[in-house]
Amino acid sequence: MPGLVNTHTHLPMVCFRGMADDLPLMEWLHGHIFPAEARFVNKKMVYDGALLAMAEMILSGTTTFCDGYLFEGKVGEAAQQAGMRAVIAHGFIDFPAPDNFDSSKKMAAAERFLAKWKGVSALITPAFFCHAPYTCSPETITTVKEAARNAGISFLIHLLETKDEIDTIKKRYGKRPVQHLHDLGILDEQTIAVHCNWVDKKDMAIFADLGVKVSHSPESSMKLAAGVAPIPEMLQLGIICGLGTDGAASNNDLDLFQEMASCARLHKVAAHEPTRLPADAVLGMATEVGAGVLGLAGQTGRLAVGLRADCIIIDRRQPHLTPFHNPETLVYAGRGSDVATGLIDGRVVMENRRILSFDLGETLDEVRRLAKGVRAGGRKGE
Amino acid sequence: MPGLVNTHTHLPMVCFRGMADDLPLMEWLHGHIFPAEARFVNKKMVYDGALLAMAEMILSGTTTFCDGYLFEGKVGEAAQQAGMRAVIAHGFIDFPAPDNFDSSKKMAAAERFLAKWKGVSALITPAFFCHAPYTCSPETITTVKEAARNAGISFLIHLLETKDEIDTIKKRYGKRPVQHLHDLGILDEQTIAVHCNWVDKKDMAIFADLGVKVSHSPESSMKLAAGVAPIPEMLQLGIICGLGTDGAASNNDLDLFQEMASCARLHKVAAHEPTRLPADAVLGMATEVGAGVLGLAGQTGRLAVGLRADCIIIDRRQPHLTPFHNPETLVYAGRGSDVATGLIDGRVVMENRRILSFDLGETLDEVRRLAKGVRAGGRKGE
Repeated sequence: MPGLVNTHTHLPMVCFRGMADDLPLMEWLHGHIFPAEARFVNKKMVYDGALLAMAEMILSGTTTFCDGYLFEGKVGEAAQQAGMRAVIAHGFIDFPAPDNFDSSKKMAAAERFLAKWKGVSALITPAFFCHAPYTCSPETITTVKEAARNAGISFLIHLLETKDEIDTIKKRYGKRPVQHLHDLGILDEQTIAVHCNWVDKKDMAIFADLGVKVSHSPESSMKLAAGVAPIPEMLQLGIICGLGTDGAASNNDLDLFQEMASCARLHKVAAHEPTRLPADAVLGMATEVGAGVLGLAGQTGRLAVGLRADCIIIDRRQPHLTPFHNPETLVYAGRGSDVATGLIDGRVVMENRRILSFDLGETLDEVRRLAKGVRAGGRKGE
Repeated sequence: MPGLVNTHTHLPMVCFRGMADDLPLMEWLHGHIFPAEARFVNKKMVYDGALLAMAEMILSGTTTFCDGYLFEGKVGEAAQQAGMRAVIAHGFIDFPAPDNFDSSKKMAAAERFLAKWKGVSALITPAFFCHAPYTCSPETITTVKEAARNAGISFLIHLLETKDEIDTIKKRYGKRPVQHLHDLGILDEQTIAVHCNWVDKKDMAIFADLGVKVSHSPESSMKLAAGVAPIPEMLQLGIICGLGTDGAASNNDLDLFQEMASCARLHKVAAHEPTRLPADAVLGMATEVGAGVLGLAGQTGRLAVGLRADCIIIDRRQPHLTPFHNPETLVYAGRGSDVATGLIDGRVVMENRRILSFDLGETLDEVRRLAKGVRAGGRKGE
């Protein structure tokens, strides 16, 4: 079958997996994640973490991902090492001081990122990523989107992950977040809105009208109790919605098979309607629709003549996949570990559950060493 | 770690896995499952299906289960073959004609079942199982519970899986289902109420007062859009709640690792509260609390001196389990396939992902053959 497409990740955050669970989103973010990032994120952490994350993704059937993080160039280098198809998004956040945005300096770094990655490989596509409407000023957002438009690349933004965001943006700008972004003129077919748990009918109409794409991360939003995005309603309106795992600090895995299962089940119970979001639609979200979100529908997401050979081989002769009447069985009973072999762009990157494109043992050791420091992070001097 | 405890299954239904998905519960049950059962259920199907299901459970870390189905003796024989710890529940259903319940005949069969299995093996505990208040008459329920009480065994019943059941029982008996069962005098510490998605405060108070146990199957109830049981509220009241997968026709797998992940995430998003049902509580539900539900807390569910050696070995050196700060990582990132080796009652039944206690290949072939018939089931003559 075609390899899976993960439309939203923060790969290096695997280093923070299990560091802080079962907390409110803002406490998790400001009390744990941001401080840990301030202390531990560097180029080596990003490279090693991203490479470990890629092993996890390849071993669970993902062949294409879209990532946004700090030192994103290192994620690009790791993707080249792993042989994965990737959209790497250079990130912007006006943090810790939203008022001291030096747009010329940040944009210069972004332009260097773009110059380095645009066209360097058929496998890697650069993009820009503003963290969120509440962490990026209107100036940041419009400047970054304009540069993305000029370069013909995707622009990503976290949007309406929590209900609180509505009040925050209303207080600051006097309108709902989607209307705010709409008025900034940044919504179009190359804008990917991530999460969208709290879009209302008017928001969805704007998305449908302008061709905005949506990335849906059900497991992360379940665990953070952030909300349930109205995905069936958006699909009904023709909005292109892909599936993503989000980072491993909030999910806590990068397994799209589990994400498919959660997605298919969650929307049924949330709507009290067992026919909602059938398994084949979810399978589509994780493959060709997801490729469409990333602007890669002409390259991947389907097994078809003319597309690149991104495909996976499933070991169906296992108890939990028996009987196997139809591919939908993979949605409800499949696991990432059922993927025996993975090809990306015609190259076998994993065979019989062994990563071939890099030394996984070495990467595991590097991240374990780093994680020891993170675990001891609360206590200075360790 | 201790082996996992699956408090609710219908094992032979693996033969119907993926046969009918994404349908309303009653259409699924009456339009697909009951007709398929009428046509395909026989002793051989129950034995082969149960054995395949046991392979799936052993390979995903379950060492103890509680099952209820037709020809349950065959499930017991399969459990002996597989070497699993099992509660096997002889089932009762007044179907298709609720008025022609010949209690003497059915009870004679149940007594034979009991005589055959009581004390025959330290691994196997018999029980009785009434399908539901809407499929079993008050006479059936009280007769069966009385026999269970006399024998000192557990009594199980599906209860409040769907909201409709409230209306059905109110129309028939003028009260809510839990009050109905309470008035029949069948609720006590050896009663296991399965699902309980629609219990209200008064129902929960009755459960807490009488020590009724609860089996929770979040994935099945999500997929069927049946509802979300108020598990955190019940735990708060001291009600003993275990985890179960339900049958593979509605889940569609028997993997308690995925069930733990769904359970921990679902209750957070359902309550809009990310601190709800933390991962360690869920891990408890899948191990020692689950053993308590089945009345086996003195035998299994913990690694402790004096308990039986039901344990599993997890392969932690994998990307998706790195870093591994705490056992809770297994809840959010673990998969059934991470279980390398399984021991039940001190016997190694699976080692390095290979079932040792029976010939899995033969069982896979048998169920595949049977499933071909099920798939062709709609068309007569095939």
